[in-house]
Amino acid sequence: LSRIACEETVLNHIRPKSEEYEHIWSVAGRLIGAVNRSGIAQGMVVGSVARDTWVRGDRDLDVFLLFDPSLSRRDLEEKGLGLARDIAREFGENLKEKYAEHPYINVAIGDLDVDLVPCFAVETAAAIKSAVDRTPFHTKYICTHIKESTDDVLLLKQFMKGGGIYGSDHVTEGFAGYLCELLILHYGGFTPLLEAARNWRPGLIIDLIGHRAKDFEEPLVVVDPVDPRRNVASSLSLTKMSEFIELANGYLEQPSIDFFFPPKATRLEYEEYVDLVHARGTAIYALCIHTPPLVPDIIVPQLRKSLDAICGLLERHGFIIHRADCCMGEDSSMLLFEIAVDRLSAVQIHMGPTIFNRVHAQKFTSKYVDNCHAGPYIMNGRYYVEIERPYRRAEQLLGSAILLETSLGKHVKKAMQNGWKVLKGEDCWVEEFIPFLSSFFNKRSPLLRIFHQRAEEIE
Amino acid sequence: LSRIACEETVLNHIRPKSEEYEHIWSVAGRLIGAVNRSGIAQGMVVGSVARDTWVRGDRDLDVFLLFDPSLSRRDLEEKGLGLARDIAREFGENLKEKYAEHPYINVAIGDLDVDLVPCFAVETAAAIKSAVDRTPFHTKYICTHIKESTDDVLLLKQFMKGGGIYGSDHVTEGFAGYLCELLILHYGGFTPLLEAARNWRPGLIIDLIGHRAKDFEEPLVVVDPVDPRRNVASSLSLTKMSEFIELANGYLEQPSIDFFFPPKATRLEYEEYVDLVHARGTAIYALCIHTPPLVPDIIVPQLRKSLDAICGLLERHGFIIHRADCCMGEDSSMLLFEIAVDRLSAVQIHMGPTIFNRVHAQKFTSKYVDNCHAGPYIMNGRYYVEIERPYRRAEQLLGSAILLETSLGKHVKKAMQNGWKVLKGEDCWVEEFIPFLSSFFNKRSPLLRIFHQRAEEIE
Repeated sequence: LSRIACEETVLNHIRPKSEEYEHIWSVAGRLIGAVNRSGIAQGMVVGSVARDTWVRGDRDLDVFLLFDPSLSRRDLEEKGLGLARDIAREFGENLKEKYAEHPYINVAIGDLDVDLVPCFAVETAAAIKSAVDRTPFHTKYICTHIKESTDDVLLLKQFMKGGGIYGSDHVTEGFAGYLCELLILHYGGFTPLLEAARNWRPGLIIDLIGHRAKDFEEPLVVVDPVDPRRNVASSLSLTKMSEFIELANGYLEQPSIDFFFPPKATRLEYEEYVDLVHARGTAIYALCIHTPPLVPDIIVPQLRKSLDAICGLLERHGFIIHRADCCMGEDSSMLLFEIAVDRLSAVQIHMGPTIFNRVHAQKFTSKYVDNCHAGPYIMNGRYYVEIERPYRRAEQLLGSAILLETSLGKHVKKAMQNGWKVLKGEDCWVEEFIPFLSSFFNKRSPLLRIFHQRAEEIE
Repeated sequence: LSRIACEETVLNHIRPKSEEYEHIWSVAGRLIGAVNRSGIAQGMVVGSVARDTWVRGDRDLDVFLLFDPSLSRRDLEEKGLGLARDIAREFGENLKEKYAEHPYINVAIGDLDVDLVPCFAVETAAAIKSAVDRTPFHTKYICTHIKESTDDVLLLKQFMKGGGIYGSDHVTEGFAGYLCELLILHYGGFTPLLEAARNWRPGLIIDLIGHRAKDFEEPLVVVDPVDPRRNVASSLSLTKMSEFIELANGYLEQPSIDFFFPPKATRLEYEEYVDLVHARGTAIYALCIHTPPLVPDIIVPQLRKSLDAICGLLERHGFIIHRADCCMGEDSSMLLFEIAVDRLSAVQIHMGPTIFNRVHAQKFTSKYVDNCHAGPYIMNGRYYVEIERPYRRAEQLLGSAILLETSLGKHVKKAMQNGWKVLKGEDCWVEEFIPFLSSFFNKRSPLLRIFHQRAEEIE
């Protein structure tokens, strides 16, 4: 398939149908009418619907309620939420109060997932009182510039989704929709962007209107056209940036619809899993907890933090981590540890004080002289002894209450205070986590197709 | 036993007997006579005999042949060795040519071990042409200053011997005889030195005549009174310095003849060794080679270098060294490795190039895409794959020719090119190395007595 034919096919799949278009805008129109009729706020559609950069099947509609900036924050929250709640009740069902920097209302209207978000109608982006006030300016900026490029944005978003790098949340650490739009604007289209990305390096700065007013540390810097002190790509990880570069290379080398709609990831069977674990010759442990009742954007970073803390503890006790990862499930969450060796020596070397502090010296040598495998002896001005290792197997450590003393995330710690389960080897095969285990052990990114392609070409 | 009674007893054991004294000086006198009669050189007794700081039973006599400094180096070596050889033939037997910075003659005269060393009779220590020319100045300095302190020097030397820290060779890295003499001179006696040593810290500088002309890095600096740019303690390790401090503390806390004449180290029995190894839960390997036919001062540093190199190799392959040590025996030498874990996972993570170098990227991903346990995947801008670990057991690595590619000492490498033996666990129990194994596994320094004493006092 040629690149053009491929992209045309994709666009035919992802451009919103006219019925969708009419439906979403009729709902939007009614909501805006209701806001405006209130007389206390102005309604505005924002997000990809407003920018005409939404993809077929997307069900998200964002309507902002713009209030007079002379209101107090407190008044905004009260009056704003009140109005949003009234409108939500009038048009939809299953109303929920949610929080970003400020509270807002989420409601189902037909098959649409609608956010009603109160904010201040500030004069300029420089005058914003909270991050949410910035959104209308993003919408205005994109709407006035995107013009003919909406197809390119649609392609890019789908390309990002297909590659698993779309979304700026803490779980994905990938590309936000607004970032995609700015990249298309800057490079002038989907293909020029991919061409350029082949030569991207960490430290790249893109500043569409040349007004950067700050230094940034992140691997990719895209200065927000409405805020010279903000990096739109601040939550993009180097890994996801690298994967985009790899995907861009792969796609330009050999275009395929697979980049946009990848084949479903293979899921391991139990027997394969058992064989794989055996072949790897590692020790597998899963630590399972009840998932705290909060959104992934809060829990996943906490799981990662806990994973790091427990890996650190394991390593301080002599266990070598091969790999580790975590997965937040609906009911329970799993921290998975793959350990290179699971049986350590009985003795370990314990470093004592320097010989130059006589008080510590006397305490240390007297404590251990009759109570150790070897020593005390002196090396380079310090005492050492060899003592019994407290944990010879990772299992013992993972089951110990000492875990609660590491720096776990707040809600993860709370969940662990109610206990946790340690599974080993084949017992880690738990229904809810089969896709996670499949990708962990089969660790083969969407990029694998590209690597195969290249290897074949070289042959 | 009081300190004074204890030291008196020791002195009665170590002061040379008058017969010894007369015998050694009569030999010395005849040798000097022979040198002087030659008309081309001046004879001089140096070393501890000249300084009256030799210990009963010492059989070393050093006679220097001082030549005119206007001679060329070559002439010195020819004429010097010629004269030394003639004299050695006349008085002794079993003549050997040896090398320090220059060649000299070693010969047995009766029960004495005599070195005949040609050197230049330079005017001042500043004018020396080689290190050996400095020795007569050391002798003159000590002879004119040591006066009444010879007993203190004798005590100190025996104290150092008893503590296993006497000797500045590469094996011991301890205190040289000349260093002992200077310390006694500086502190005014054996007891004041021990008192002072309790407060020693690394970085201490002792400069008897205040003429230091250089900065030194070593833990103890004792500026040579005859050379302001030389540290007499340069080969003293921090470990041996620390052990001296500990011994000084222990002796002053509770004096005992044991410090000067320690009880013989306990030697392990085979059954104890087997139990010990089992209790430690480590993996023990010994690598044995034929000992190259050279002196310990050359071979031991090479064994240590080889030990470090092989430990590095083991660690790069994932094995964790608990402890390692080496021993030069008469026939064979042993490198002993105690490893905390001996069975590693089958897979290991292999880091690839950055994704930003496209040529390397293509090569790497094509090489591994169908030839790895997992990956290739990207992390922080680099490719990684998981491949089969080449050595899962230390035994395999220790038996591999890859060892010859590490930076072994020259003669050790030569010996290893003729092959080596790898022993494991109980098989490491080889007659020649039982004392070495005993001290390795029972790792209990001469300091242990002190630690026990203190622990009892605290109770």
